[in-house]
Formats: sequence, structure tokens, C-alpha cells
Amino acid sequence: MTYDDSNVFAKILRGELPCHKIYETDRILAFMDVMPRGDGHVLVIPKNKARNLFDVDPDDLAELAKAVQIVGKAAKTALSADGLTIQQFNESAGGQVVFHIHFHVIPRFEGVALKPHTGQMEKPEILTELASRIRAALPAA
Amino acid sequence: MTYDDSNVFAKILRGELPCHKIYETDRILAFMDVMPRGDGHVLVIPKNKARNLFDVDPDDLAELAKAVQIVGKAAKTALSADGLTIQQFNESAGGQVVFHIHFHVIPRFEGVALKPHTGQMEKPEILTELASRIRAALPAA
Repeated sequence: MTYDDSNVFAKILRGELPCHKIYETDRILAFMDVMPRGDGHVLVIPKNKARNLFDVDPDDLAELAKAVQIVGKAAKTALSADGLTIQQFNESAGGQVVFHIHFHVIPRFEGVALKPHTGQMEKPEILTELASRIRAALPAA
Repeated sequence: MTYDDSNVFAKILRGELPCHKIYETDRILAFMDVMPRGDGHVLVIPKNKARNLFDVDPDDLAELAKAVQIVGKAAKTALSADGLTIQQFNESAGGQVVFHIHFHVIPRFEGVALKPHTGQMEKPEILTELASRIRAALPAA
């Protein structure tokens, strides 16, 4: 299994596709999932190329986990969420759809189930507003 | 939200409850989930006390992620899995049941859905056999 440079996250990293950016370091990018399974659904990815957990550099993975925590705390605070569900899928059988490793950070609310993965796009203005609120809750850089 | 020392993973860490151990370092323990959502379902936890993503030490979290990769690769190899699903739940609304932070590492197979979380215990002899196979696929220490 090799890395395919034509995946959508590679295009976002190269600036060929836009994203609603939440957080960025020299190694990490976090942005809104355009097909969210709940309000405030964020994706966290490394900038280095990796298909999934089976080939990612362990130090990139460690940085990724730390970024998931930073973004997850901000999303919970920003949206007054009751909890957070973290998912990370590897290969099609594992639920992976885009083949650049990513963590799903999904704010959760009492009594609200995850939406099914229908492929329906969220309205850009809603993503813009949620992204703005989550960014505002990040620790000062 | 504080840490409750009476949770079952705290009891496992104190040796008050048994587990089917997969992997251990000075900071990490991995063992079979006794209520697996699929064959080879492993839990990875830090030894330090933390309720979930909201209070875990970032360096413990980084170690945890690296251990998830090590255990996940071994489980995939041992069971010839097609993929891997990683889940990490925070607070009840996020799906958390045991309040010591843990990552679920679940080998996945084409066409086989995750079993529902029914609370049904797997037979100990099956867990023993799966644990033995996964341990055998770990890199040499």
C-alpha cells in the first residue's frame, strides 16, 4: 500500500483545495470536515505523507495525538460539548475513505447520535462560523 | 471531572483484576478487551492516572499513540486483518464507559461489521489464544 498524491488532503496541503483551517504547526494541519458527522467535526493530519497508521512516522503520530488533544479541548470549550469521540480509520475495511492518515475529532452532545456518513456537504457559512468559534478557543500560540 | 481510582482499568493496573496482556512498557499497558467488538480487539492505556483526553499528560498521550501503532501493526499481522479501526471516547456523551483514558484498537476484515457493544463477555480461552498470536507478532523488545 503506497501513498497516492492525488488524495484530497494532499491537495489541501498543497493549497490546491481550500479548507476551513483550525490549527497549523510546521508538522500538523487541522481543518473542518466538510461532511461532518456532528457540529464541529474537525480533521487533524500530519503534513508529511503517510497513508495511515501502518506507515506513519511514530514521531509524526505522537505530534498528531498532541494536536488532537489541543483541537479537541478547543472544540469542546467552543461548542460547550459534553464529550468528544475520536476515530482513526485504516484501510477500507477499517473505514478509511481518504488515504492520507487523519484523526476525526467529533464534539458530542448528550442525546445526539453521530450523523451517518452520507457524503452530504455542510453549508460553507456554517463551517466558517464553527471554525471561527473553535479557533477562538485555542490556547494562545 | 476527576479521576476515580475504582475504575476497572485502575484495578487491572494495581493487579487487583487480571487481564490478557499484550504489551507493556514503564508507561503503557495493552490488553484484550473482554467485551470485544471484533476479533483481536485490544485496549491501550497509560499507567499514569488520567480520566480522558481532557486531562491526560500530552507526553503520555504521545506514548499512547506510539503504542497504539505498535499494537495495531501486530494485531493486523497476527490476524491477517484487512484494516484497523481506532476509537477513543471521552465522557459519556462521547461514548466513554470506563473512566481511565484508553484507545480501542480493532482489527477489521472485509465485509465484517463491528459487533454492537452488548456487554457480552468473550470466552477466556478465545482471548488467551488471540492474545498469544498478537504478542507473537510484536517486534522483538
